[in-house]
Amino acid sequence: MPAPQNAEAREVYEKERAHVLAPWTAWGKHDPMVVTKSEGVYLWDGDDNKLLDFTSQLVNTNIGHQHPVVVKAIQDQAAEMCTINPAHANAARAEAARLISSIAPEGMNRVFFTMAGTEAVEHAIRMARRHTGRVKTLSAFRSYHGATTTSMNLTGDTRRWANDYGNTGAVHFHAPFLYRSQFYAETEEQECERALQHLDDLIALEGPDHFAALIIESIPGTVGIMVPPADYLRGVREICDKYGIVMICDEVMSGFGRAGTWLALDNFRNGPDDWTPDLITFAKGSNSGYIPLGGVIIHDRIAESFKDTPYTGGLTYAGHPLACGSAVATINLMRDEGIVEHAKKLGEEVIGPRLREIAEKHPSVGEVRGLGCFWALELVKNQETREPLAPYGGSSEAMAKAMGAAKAEGVLLFMNYNRFHVVPPLVITEEQVREGLDVLDRALDVADGYVD
Amino acid sequence: MPAPQNAEAREVYEKERAHVLAPWTAWGKHDPMVVTKSEGVYLWDGDDNKLLDFTSQLVNTNIGHQHPVVVKAIQDQAAEMCTINPAHANAARAEAARLISSIAPEGMNRVFFTMAGTEAVEHAIRMARRHTGRVKTLSAFRSYHGATTTSMNLTGDTRRWANDYGNTGAVHFHAPFLYRSQFYAETEEQECERALQHLDDLIALEGPDHFAALIIESIPGTVGIMVPPADYLRGVREICDKYGIVMICDEVMSGFGRAGTWLALDNFRNGPDDWTPDLITFAKGSNSGYIPLGGVIIHDRIAESFKDTPYTGGLTYAGHPLACGSAVATINLMRDEGIVEHAKKLGEEVIGPRLREIAEKHPSVGEVRGLGCFWALELVKNQETREPLAPYGGSSEAMAKAMGAAKAEGVLLFMNYNRFHVVPPLVITEEQVREGLDVLDRALDVADGYVD
Repeated sequence: MPAPQNAEAREVYEKERAHVLAPWTAWGKHDPMVVTKSEGVYLWDGDDNKLLDFTSQLVNTNIGHQHPVVVKAIQDQAAEMCTINPAHANAARAEAARLISSIAPEGMNRVFFTMAGTEAVEHAIRMARRHTGRVKTLSAFRSYHGATTTSMNLTGDTRRWANDYGNTGAVHFHAPFLYRSQFYAETEEQECERALQHLDDLIALEGPDHFAALIIESIPGTVGIMVPPADYLRGVREICDKYGIVMICDEVMSGFGRAGTWLALDNFRNGPDDWTPDLITFAKGSNSGYIPLGGVIIHDRIAESFKDTPYTGGLTYAGHPLACGSAVATINLMRDEGIVEHAKKLGEEVIGPRLREIAEKHPSVGEVRGLGCFWALELVKNQETREPLAPYGGSSEAMAKAMGAAKAEGVLLFMNYNRFHVVPPLVITEEQVREGLDVLDRALDVADGYVD
Repeated sequence: MPAPQNAEAREVYEKERAHVLAPWTAWGKHDPMVVTKSEGVYLWDGDDNKLLDFTSQLVNTNIGHQHPVVVKAIQDQAAEMCTINPAHANAARAEAARLISSIAPEGMNRVFFTMAGTEAVEHAIRMARRHTGRVKTLSAFRSYHGATTTSMNLTGDTRRWANDYGNTGAVHFHAPFLYRSQFYAETEEQECERALQHLDDLIALEGPDHFAALIIESIPGTVGIMVPPADYLRGVREICDKYGIVMICDEVMSGFGRAGTWLALDNFRNGPDDWTPDLITFAKGSNSGYIPLGGVIIHDRIAESFKDTPYTGGLTYAGHPLACGSAVATINLMRDEGIVEHAKKLGEEVIGPRLREIAEKHPSVGEVRGLGCFWALELVKNQETREPLAPYGGSSEAMAKAMGAAKAEGVLLFMNYNRFHVVPPLVITEEQVREGLDVLDRALDVADGYVD
């Protein structure tokens, strides 16, 4: 994109290019959009172009940008107490822990705080290892769990490749994904049943007594929002029980309203007495990322291992008062304003129906899937062969051009390989989301031009 | 300690015990002090007892608690922009990167931002591995580098033990520590020379072409503040050059004024043309931990590897505007108020002389060492045998009682095994630090009672 014309934004642009190494980026080719303002569901770039944010940045600003209630809460908490040693108790952390465990299933009463998702995953795995005395782990292909050593090795995505030395005991399985089934399945029921059989077989062959943990995104996020069949996670729970494996649901992206429920796993439980995971990892939506925060919600049955024996991990900013204060404000706000229910309604009544209409119309759209404010469009060169419009782990002119067309009309899309995700802030209005989807509809005309 | 009598603090205490798993802690035995207020160099507990903070919490609040200038800057930045995708540029991040590289040696012009020290270390090691194409690492015994997988395995401290599966290629060496010399040395010069010879020999035997990185705390922190001999780090640099190993100075605790200089390594360089590390990891002092922040400062010679090829790592909150904004305010404040120079003067004129006086007087003090506001007292049962007053990795009645005596007189000490550290906020006045050292002096009478 062209560097901003505005002098002040231009200076920011040049300074970032001179002094920042940005994630997953070659700095010599770094050409960032300068964002000078963000508010609600909108961003403004360096030349004051207003963009509708269909990305929630990295799918974290669930309450939108600069929500005045949470900004005020941060300002108040900053005046009261920014930081304290995690060994000392403080009011913000105590209340955040209480509130966060209140949105989790029964029996999940304790929280270990981190600064973000990757550390939450690191510590959840460590808890499982300490609890079981085992080392190996199970995680899905087409998953993302973070970029520190353990979470990166769990990741079943191209981002692991360069950082994988084959030394962490991470074993990968295929989770259900009917559109690109590994199991030659033709129905959801078949995909579910065969995916569970595959998992059970894999464990049997890899050594059932050697797995500490299985981690799975309740709904896989960046890798494609493949909503699992209704009974899949329950089946995974049964397999974990059978082999004494700690089950971790990764809700870093899918939690806190994104899927139209407080936790995405709520979509796959029939009431409070149904199955529960052992550990839940969370981050992004817990405070919309206004301050770095994440953590692990711990079931009593795992917490029991750390009642008399210390848990062997920690961090300077665990349960950081300012971060926790912002989570308290965010969760209360989401409850007070019914933001989770709004997300659910948007998914059912607006986004889902309109995306299905779009899919009908465009030959470049292979599949549409999702719920709440958590949707993916899988773009293909050919609806019959399902050949992706960009290769796995790569990009393509078709995708870039369609993305650019949406941006030119003022909508920022989330792009990953051959997919666009529709993941706006949950506070988006029906009118705003319709406006954005109309732009997406037109942008897909560009993608259609690349269809065989 | 007794739970607070005050009803409000009591509620915080009970809620933390019910819902939080604190770092390195067994929750069944968790008995935290509730902190209800923090200001300057003081904390207040749940029953309104005022404590002089000789810990800077986890040695991070270098500018003291709730500094009004930085609190105001956080409030202003919160109003402007809390968070943004790290792929987009923003003013706070750009300026923080410029300022942070300005305090580093010449040629270190680029910053990769993380949320704290452990991730900074993870990413620094990854950069070294990507740069060299090698995997193994070198780090010191008696070191702490963080609690995610790689940083934990680099750590040469008891905290690694339970989390070490022997699978990360981490090799440990002995850094200089004359008081407990591994090299039968009798002088600083001998210790330095032999420590370097040991390192060179170890590399030769472990395989010189296999090490990606050597990481070392410029001055080891939590593990004992062993200020290295003047020429040691220069010698390490030479060895790294000889074998093509990336040299990482870990300044997470020692940086940003703690050692009386902007970076602790400044104490061991003769002017701008002297040796430089390849990478520097930082966190705590960069914004006093008011918001989670850390990162890697990258020398141009390493950055070159990521000019055309993307760096393979990232995180949602890399270069978080609110965190970066607080770093900008903190660094400017430290410059404007001469906080680093103040820390140096305190070390030379007040803390050092008074601690040496204390050491003369108390049979329980084996050694005093440090500089700036970064000091350790090594407590022993016997000055001849140097037997520690608490075992390595453990605690003792003697240490606990002395710690309690100081607290009863209103001073919070930093305790680790058989050591007390004197690590107050750098903004402490001469009078306040003298007052605290007088309390420490009296508390050591208790420790003296346990001497053989």
